[in-house]
Amino acid sequence: MGRPLRSSQAAKEEINPVEGLSALSLDALTSVAYGPQALLVALGAGGLVALRLAPWISLAIVVLLCLLVASYLQVIVAYPGGGGAYAVARANLGSRLSLLAGAALIVDYTLTVAVSIAAGVASLTSAFVGLYPYTVPICLVTLALITYLNLRGLAEGAKAFLLPTIGFIAAVLVVIVVGLVHPFAPHLHQFGSAQVAGHALQAVGVLLILQAFSAGCSALTGVEAIANGVPLFRKPRVRTARQTEVMLGVLLAVMLLGLAVLVQKFHVEPRTGNAVLNQIVAYSIGRGWLFDAVSVLVTLALALAANTSFGGLPVLASLLAGDNRLPHAFAIRGDRLVFGYGIWVLAVLAGVLLVATAGNTNSLIPLFAIGVFTGFTLAQAGLVRHWLSTRAHGWRWRMSLNAIGATASGVSTLIFVLTKFREGAWVVVIAMPLLILLFVRIHTYYGKVGAQLHLGDRPAKPKRARSIVVVPFTDVSRLTREALSQALSMGDEVHAVTVVFAEGGARQKAVEQEWERWDPGVELVVLRSQYHSVARPLLRYISSLKPSAARRVIVLIPVVLPRHFWHRALHNHLDRVLSAALSRRHNVVVARLTLPLSDE
Amino acid sequence: MGRPLRSSQAAKEEINPVEGLSALSLDALTSVAYGPQALLVALGAGGLVALRLAPWISLAIVVLLCLLVASYLQVIVAYPGGGGAYAVARANLGSRLSLLAGAALIVDYTLTVAVSIAAGVASLTSAFVGLYPYTVPICLVTLALITYLNLRGLAEGAKAFLLPTIGFIAAVLVVIVVGLVHPFAPHLHQFGSAQVAGHALQAVGVLLILQAFSAGCSALTGVEAIANGVPLFRKPRVRTARQTEVMLGVLLAVMLLGLAVLVQKFHVEPRTGNAVLNQIVAYSIGRGWLFDAVSVLVTLALALAANTSFGGLPVLASLLAGDNRLPHAFAIRGDRLVFGYGIWVLAVLAGVLLVATAGNTNSLIPLFAIGVFTGFTLAQAGLVRHWLSTRAHGWRWRMSLNAIGATASGVSTLIFVLTKFREGAWVVVIAMPLLILLFVRIHTYYGKVGAQLHLGDRPAKPKRARSIVVVPFTDVSRLTREALSQALSMGDEVHAVTVVFAEGGARQKAVEQEWERWDPGVELVVLRSQYHSVARPLLRYISSLKPSAARRVIVLIPVVLPRHFWHRALHNHLDRVLSAALSRRHNVVVARLTLPLSDE
Repeated sequence: MGRPLRSSQAAKEEINPVEGLSALSLDALTSVAYGPQALLVALGAGGLVALRLAPWISLAIVVLLCLLVASYLQVIVAYPGGGGAYAVARANLGSRLSLLAGAALIVDYTLTVAVSIAAGVASLTSAFVGLYPYTVPICLVTLALITYLNLRGLAEGAKAFLLPTIGFIAAVLVVIVVGLVHPFAPHLHQFGSAQVAGHALQAVGVLLILQAFSAGCSALTGVEAIANGVPLFRKPRVRTARQTEVMLGVLLAVMLLGLAVLVQKFHVEPRTGNAVLNQIVAYSIGRGWLFDAVSVLVTLALALAANTSFGGLPVLASLLAGDNRLPHAFAIRGDRLVFGYGIWVLAVLAGVLLVATAGNTNSLIPLFAIGVFTGFTLAQAGLVRHWLSTRAHGWRWRMSLNAIGATASGVSTLIFVLTKFREGAWVVVIAMPLLILLFVRIHTYYGKVGAQLHLGDRPAKPKRARSIVVVPFTDVSRLTREALSQALSMGDEVHAVTVVFAEGGARQKAVEQEWERWDPGVELVVLRSQYHSVARPLLRYISSLKPSAARRVIVLIPVVLPRHFWHRALHNHLDRVLSAALSRRHNVVVARLTLPLSDE
Repeated sequence: MGRPLRSSQAAKEEINPVEGLSALSLDALTSVAYGPQALLVALGAGGLVALRLAPWISLAIVVLLCLLVASYLQVIVAYPGGGGAYAVARANLGSRLSLLAGAALIVDYTLTVAVSIAAGVASLTSAFVGLYPYTVPICLVTLALITYLNLRGLAEGAKAFLLPTIGFIAAVLVVIVVGLVHPFAPHLHQFGSAQVAGHALQAVGVLLILQAFSAGCSALTGVEAIANGVPLFRKPRVRTARQTEVMLGVLLAVMLLGLAVLVQKFHVEPRTGNAVLNQIVAYSIGRGWLFDAVSVLVTLALALAANTSFGGLPVLASLLAGDNRLPHAFAIRGDRLVFGYGIWVLAVLAGVLLVATAGNTNSLIPLFAIGVFTGFTLAQAGLVRHWLSTRAHGWRWRMSLNAIGATASGVSTLIFVLTKFREGAWVVVIAMPLLILLFVRIHTYYGKVGAQLHLGDRPAKPKRARSIVVVPFTDVSRLTREALSQALSMGDEVHAVTVVFAEGGARQKAVEQEWERWDPGVELVVLRSQYHSVARPLLRYISSLKPSAARRVIVLIPVVLPRHFWHRALHNHLDRVLSAALSRRHNVVVARLTLPLSDE
């Protein structure tokens, strides 16, 4: 895992609006692959007649989209440093609500990964029907691939995503135009059984409409990402970011409306193993090789959309860690090791979701959108407070706009929770408080530790003391010489210590004679061990030196570094045994001198 | 895993013959639970008529037993320090054959664990028939339990095994006597389907007889253990050990012959899910609660027999390690960490065998005995050479005895391999050369490394050099003070280094001001990191110090030790990131200062 990290590369680029779309908005754009389907599945419970409502509900969703885009244009102005829901809520709404935002975003990132992969694989299996029984394995392999690329740091930057993004947008727009003007297969027979109730399971009423609206709103996830990433844009940053946001809004609205009209025109029904978007593609351009190509393109775009969460979570985690809400390690996200933690956590959570729902988008949708819309609500509400306190130019209408956005998002969130609670939303309703509890516990813990370490107080001045270096060794060798040289350079007193087993009287004499001949100018200590242990006699000897603040004992362990990792088991048992035994001793410093082996 | 180790306790005891039986011979004694059954299963291929040969083959096996016991009485005299096959072969037959002995013993220990557990569980399921479908899980749970007890070091000493051993011997003898004199249920209907061919699958000829002999010889495994453990016995050691060996021989012969007669008397047939020993117990004392109790006792004794391998393998591994044939770590078997390695290796191998054979004793038997009898052969052959070279008192007849023993064991081994090759012996025939190859490769590797480290040569004298201590820290705290005190005590120059992120200009000033106010007398270095990495700027700084043999750089990492392990994820990210990054740097010593947190 040796390449430099994405963050360092991304920072060097300065992206234009189209690149912005590919780097930050792929998640939002690709949600047309599952949003309309979710809407139809929800309506399907009301029978065929209910499906007629689809265009109108889509229209309502597009209106909400416009409201959200308008609101986020304000966020970009107010927070040109990157205004994620967590940062905005923390600055304006206090720490409690910021924790809610943090929890909502973690849930959002996880679900984005799971839903995008599930929808991508659904597009693939809609084209290559024989793969349908292998949905879960394909989902997990895709997840593993994305995880691997992220761990390697190869999943970088805007430029790599540019082509698939443009390809995806172009393909969807072409499908819409061809479908409206001159569809190639308007009477195609679609495979898969229809997920529409023959006898309406549910009356076509307010509840059904609200449920369909909730489900369809999953198409709006991701519109906030541009506002989070303002610092990445080309100067003038705010203007470029706003241009990008408007482009996203227009494109998403056009796609959603276009698809809604085609759903009506072709009488599309939700079907098992045949995704709604793929059905529309098939009606529009026929089921030829072009259909296969578009389906694969959709899969690729969704996989890349899943990938964006892997870029977003580390940033959020570092903000939370900086506020003592997550382990401090996450604050140094630029280091490969820590970067890896976040990726693994996200991959495992998404994997669990995919397995639990058998990679079925329709089962994941009820969990989705709640986190996203909680974030929307808090960000907009935070901005209302922001305009109130700054009273910047045009604050009145800006505040009103954000207030409307906050209200709309808040009401939507409530609708989601109420209408989808039993279908899976309860998972999110349980998960978010648990995450908040975790944040609170970690914060309390760090507070206590800080007090114990006298963080903030000025400690006494450091004091030099006498130091004794103990060098354990097994044979006189180049390694021993290196270790003793090092020990002499760092201690007032050096003891070279070796352990011989009880039955080895001859061995003791041999070591002593060898030492005398070598005469390294260092005291030799030979310890006898009755039970084939080296740790116990060494620990006893170290204790006998009475380590204390005034008499510091350093154990310098010479270790060799073999060229091949599979040779590691053959070396450094002394290190392993002693490190384990000494790791809990306060006054003993364990130091390690490494000697690389060249060629073996 | 905190208790002291078994070896240290065992060494304090000095055992008498009865205790010797329980500590060293439980494996041999309990083999009556699977040996006679293996014999009958092999004969079963020849149909009912072939079963009549069982007593005669048993007699042949007992003759071989007498020969082996007589031979091992000589081993005890010749090697009062403990004459395992490996040690005897190494001393007398050269390193190549000693490697064969080592490989054979490792195979033997592994199979003893697997066979004993499988036979023990078979006894349990013969009594509690409902458990039969859960054979594999019960085997694995038993294995896990034994592993756990060994890791905890609780499976110690002779005394704990005394009662089950005596109970087992007494129970088997009582069953035999009652069965011979006045069986309680001689016409009992036995459940399970008979594993006897209706139409003889195989002619009753030499091959069938040799196969049955091979299988039955599994009852002789373990007779060598007393000779390995002579140093454990009460003084006069040799005499006590010989008494124990004779006792073992007599007991085992009586049990085998007694059971053979009862097999004939009750017309016992091998059956699925109904072990032969349990059948005999049932005929003899009926299937009442006493039957259940005896079955459980047999299970317990077999589990303890499996346990003895866990004591034997570490001793063998340490001998091999001392000869550069296994990782040196195994030589210090007295240290808990290393002790644990051997236990895990054994547990995993035995677990794999149990799963692969579905916990079926009959499938494991063809693999067994080959390792044991290879060891017998090499030990006896070694002794022939020993007597030839020492010409001690009575060397002629002693040599003859061992020569007969070696020949008999050698011929038996050959018979095993030839007759059971296709039934599973091939696994052992492949595994042993692979193990030998491993030993050879490790030996060669250590030779090369030794040459590179100039082992044996006298190295140049160690030299003191200038040392620079780098102390990375995040906040000024008690921990920083401790670290700086330590650093001042071990270096000529101390640099306190902290990393601030690029956006944190304010942070840099704050740190500098705090440092000025504190004035610890140590130079402060503030590094700026652009990409939220602490490792990279620190590594760059360390490189800029130009570490070399004449200018030694020590990185002293302050770490805190939380009271609860689940708090570890919240601390020491600097340590983790830096240790990983620095582990391969030759001229940089990584030292760790631990500050335990008291109450949180």
